[in-house]
Amino acid sequence: MLNFYYAPDTCSLATHLALVHVGALFKTVRVDISKNDQNSSEFLQVNPLGRVPVLVTEDGSITETPALLLYLAQRYSDAYLAPIHDPYMLAVFNSFNSYLCSTVHIAHSHRMRGYRWADEPSAWDAMRRKVPVSVAECFSSIEKGMMRGPWVLGQQFSASDYYLLTLSRWLELDGVDVKQFPRVSNHRSRMMDIELVKRVISTEESQNMCAHGTPLIKIIEA
Amino acid sequence: MLNFYYAPDTCSLATHLALVHVGALFKTVRVDISKNDQNSSEFLQVNPLGRVPVLVTEDGSITETPALLLYLAQRYSDAYLAPIHDPYMLAVFNSFNSYLCSTVHIAHSHRMRGYRWADEPSAWDAMRRKVPVSVAECFSSIEKGMMRGPWVLGQQFSASDYYLLTLSRWLELDGVDVKQFPRVSNHRSRMMDIELVKRVISTEESQNMCAHGTPLIKIIEA
Repeated sequence: MLNFYYAPDTCSLATHLALVHVGALFKTVRVDISKNDQNSSEFLQVNPLGRVPVLVTEDGSITETPALLLYLAQRYSDAYLAPIHDPYMLAVFNSFNSYLCSTVHIAHSHRMRGYRWADEPSAWDAMRRKVPVSVAECFSSIEKGMMRGPWVLGQQFSASDYYLLTLSRWLELDGVDVKQFPRVSNHRSRMMDIELVKRVISTEESQNMCAHGTPLIKIIEA
Repeated sequence: MLNFYYAPDTCSLATHLALVHVGALFKTVRVDISKNDQNSSEFLQVNPLGRVPVLVTEDGSITETPALLLYLAQRYSDAYLAPIHDPYMLAVFNSFNSYLCSTVHIAHSHRMRGYRWADEPSAWDAMRRKVPVSVAECFSSIEKGMMRGPWVLGQQFSASDYYLLTLSRWLELDGVDVKQFPRVSNHRSRMMDIELVKRVISTEESQNMCAHGTPLIKIIEA
């Protein structure tokens, strides 16, 4: 049995979608970031970095979305979530995921998490002002060719599509009009039409957050 | 034949070391960041993102260090640069590389590249001041357990060791005393004793930069 720690409206959605896609048997454990659960002593035992997603397997824990997506693709290879036997296409898959993780997600994070990189609130404000520009630059690169189309890798659907959807859902909150990017916009619409995607997002959104005073982390059967 | 675009004193060192380790036949192409070659029209044709490393293969280009390291490990599997047949240990490998790419390197980048995330020089100064703290926090996590020891993955040397060395070499410039982290410090010393490491770093450092007015990118046989 796998235990999957996630938080709604975070990048853990990509792994959540992939877990359901491959048909894994797993329990979900919701981490309430609005209550700072990610820094609770309970959660820090699971991940000392205080971040989601975390997948606890029989062998140990796994963190970082690019690693998790490839792990699920390799462990559940019948689901074909990545071109694991083609070194070049697997590199394209990993490169795209790495770009989302280290450039796109980071550009986005400067809207709410400036404290990671500066102590002065005036610097956080400056970072926040730049987010619409820096995030739009990232999606411009994706629009112009990093996404091969119709899916990230071309004709073959992969876990990178779940990851791209996860981040493209944040565009409006980041002050970016998705209509600037018709291919990304079209990808997002097609992804949102997939039943599995609707179901997982709805599950994440509908679960009540833990009431104040109850245990910080609530275990929910997927 | 592979063409490898790199710049000295950047994260491309990790891939350079891995290329030599696996015995790949490749040409190196040096990109002079001090002359802004990464934004030249020639280089932007190679990588529209204007960043190194880039490996141009028979199938197409590959960017992003975590993707490159796994590609080399899979293509040259006899060199055993990653536990490619063990999904859990490969996830540990990828997770570590992703953390270096998206957290450690990003913390470091706020010293010189604040313009990516804010427009005001005062914000860049604020970011620069925080780098010794944020980078030290990252290496504290590596010291406390992310690096299993004696190598990143434990007893098995992997490309993650080349990547960790690449970033731990920046500690002093980032205002962090490596002596705070005896395990990281010991790892760095052992890595610097490897003949291949000495040779590649020496090659990167000794090649003369392109003279002003000559072609922006100079091709050098490895």
